[in-house]
Amino acid sequence: MPSLRDLGEFGAIRLLAHGLREGPGVVIGSGDDAAVLRVAPGRDLVVTTDAFVEGRHWLPEWIDPATLGARLAAANLSDVAAMAAVPRWAVLAIGARAGHDAQALATLQEGLARGLADHGATLVGGNLAAVEGGEWLALTLLGEVERGRAWTRSAARPGDLLVVTGFPGRAGAGARLARALGEAARGDEWRALLAAWLRPAPRVAAAQALLATGAVTAAIDVSDGLLGDLAHLCEASGVGAEIRAEPGTADPWLARAADTLGVSAFDLWVGPSDDYELLLAVDPAQRARCEQAAGAAGATLAFIGRFTDARGAIACLEGDGSRRVLGSAGFDHFARG
Amino acid sequence: MPSLRDLGEFGAIRLLAHGLREGPGVVIGSGDDAAVLRVAPGRDLVVTTDAFVEGRHWLPEWIDPATLGARLAAANLSDVAAMAAVPRWAVLAIGARAGHDAQALATLQEGLARGLADHGATLVGGNLAAVEGGEWLALTLLGEVERGRAWTRSAARPGDLLVVTGFPGRAGAGARLARALGEAARGDEWRALLAAWLRPAPRVAAAQALLATGAVTAAIDVSDGLLGDLAHLCEASGVGAEIRAEPGTADPWLARAADTLGVSAFDLWVGPSDDYELLLAVDPAQRARCEQAAGAAGATLAFIGRFTDARGAIACLEGDGSRRVLGSAGFDHFARG
Repeated sequence: MPSLRDLGEFGAIRLLAHGLREGPGVVIGSGDDAAVLRVAPGRDLVVTTDAFVEGRHWLPEWIDPATLGARLAAANLSDVAAMAAVPRWAVLAIGARAGHDAQALATLQEGLARGLADHGATLVGGNLAAVEGGEWLALTLLGEVERGRAWTRSAARPGDLLVVTGFPGRAGAGARLARALGEAARGDEWRALLAAWLRPAPRVAAAQALLATGAVTAAIDVSDGLLGDLAHLCEASGVGAEIRAEPGTADPWLARAADTLGVSAFDLWVGPSDDYELLLAVDPAQRARCEQAAGAAGATLAFIGRFTDARGAIACLEGDGSRRVLGSAGFDHFARG
Repeated sequence: MPSLRDLGEFGAIRLLAHGLREGPGVVIGSGDDAAVLRVAPGRDLVVTTDAFVEGRHWLPEWIDPATLGARLAAANLSDVAAMAAVPRWAVLAIGARAGHDAQALATLQEGLARGLADHGATLVGGNLAAVEGGEWLALTLLGEVERGRAWTRSAARPGDLLVVTGFPGRAGAGARLARALGEAARGDEWRALLAAWLRPAPRVAAAQALLATGAVTAAIDVSDGLLGDLAHLCEASGVGAEIRAEPGTADPWLARAADTLGVSAFDLWVGPSDDYELLLAVDPAQRARCEQAAGAAGATLAFIGRFTDARGAIACLEGDGSRRVLGSAGFDHFARG
């Protein structure tokens, strides 16, 4: 298969441009200096950017190009979902080595475009740059949200329920197992954890269903880990939180991983993890309505605690009724070692 | 000064978030999962992304952080100008080594934010990722254009005048001199060329002034080199072009660089060069009006030829009246050597 060097820059760009799409709201698509898009009347625009770096956000031996593309789409879709917005358009900047197989790069972009299309968004443009060392991918995703209805991090109230979609911690556990066990991590007993790491499902539909209930007061994307992102939300809202340990320690997948890794299931649950789940503050009067709405949109909700007026303090309630104060523990990409 | 590693990821993000701006149309700025923006009624949205890679798009010993930031802003502003759009908002993805001086990175971002603000745009968000090797910067810029009025590459007509803003080729000549001469390229005799390379002026205001004339039929940003981008525009429009050699060979700055580098001034003029000038197709009846409009907006226009019906053919008219056929010669980032 020809490399990018074999095709030359413009040949490679032509190949990638071929994979860009027409789509709703796309007035002028690829092939010009910029794409032209039409935002629906009465809607605000939402914009986010998230980048993956080879070796850090992905390990080439653990993820095929199409799955990697879809995962980068999920990372950005999750941020748009956390604003209660509908994803619409994206542009992809790629840093690739000249020896990169051109078809593999097109497959990566196709996986990304499909991942976006699954949630109603269109890949409309990009940029291709040559790098010598590690490769990288930077996606910018645009969405639309009804004017004044975007969720923020800053409006959680004491007494609101603390809710997460899906199963936080599983993605981080999958990544740790892959590093610790190597090929053995591909075993069926780790299936749900590897899937959570490699094929996260962004909560776009669930966010729309929950938006319709009017019950959500604040939201954040869990991409740094449950505790780290909870700390961000508490800081922005000027509140504290109490979480119960049980929902985390009761996850059988986390419990098994914890045994093998020699850590606690609770730490896996709340620690560094690229989960792309949503953490929400919810009006306690509307719990049942939220469960129903999320369930209809294919997402499990876990009610794991509540927000308090103890500004900045995050406490954990153990199964035996005891209470301990937690620090925050998100993932620090610049940390030593 | 502390490095990114010293500050930690969230400390570094907090430092960079501090440099983000509020601005017109920014409903929710930094500090949430995504920014929320308001597009003006009757306007379409324009989106472009352009990335710089260390060692390839910038040489750290030749450009300080603030100037580098402004140059990346210019690269993206130029794409938005080429669509006749008004720049509005941007997000910046950064790949930086853990040892990067944190203040230097904040200065880079500040230079970028100022470069954007000079043309009415606001930096509203970003992403920071740790890299091991070469650093990189990927900017996505959003603009607005009156519905249906965006310039494209595809509507040049045979008979239209071929026009460029400023002095294409100078940026490329500056870059080649820096590589060839080292410190000697900082001499005053190369001043205009080094400035064109390091401090390009995007043609945002000139584009708006020219849009108002209604005389421009097609446009492209000259970032790959005059001949390469002319070939792109001809291909998209299904036309050919004839250019006169004289405007290039008569540029005294290019002529001097050509002597020193042992190449022809013409080749410097049309060859690979990150000029961020605009190449335009213009209604011949409106030449004077265009010159006046661009001049009032601070841009020189050079009328360097015309478009023809010889689809895909680009010819050069020499000073002696002879005519030769040119190939395209943009810069190929994946080329060997």
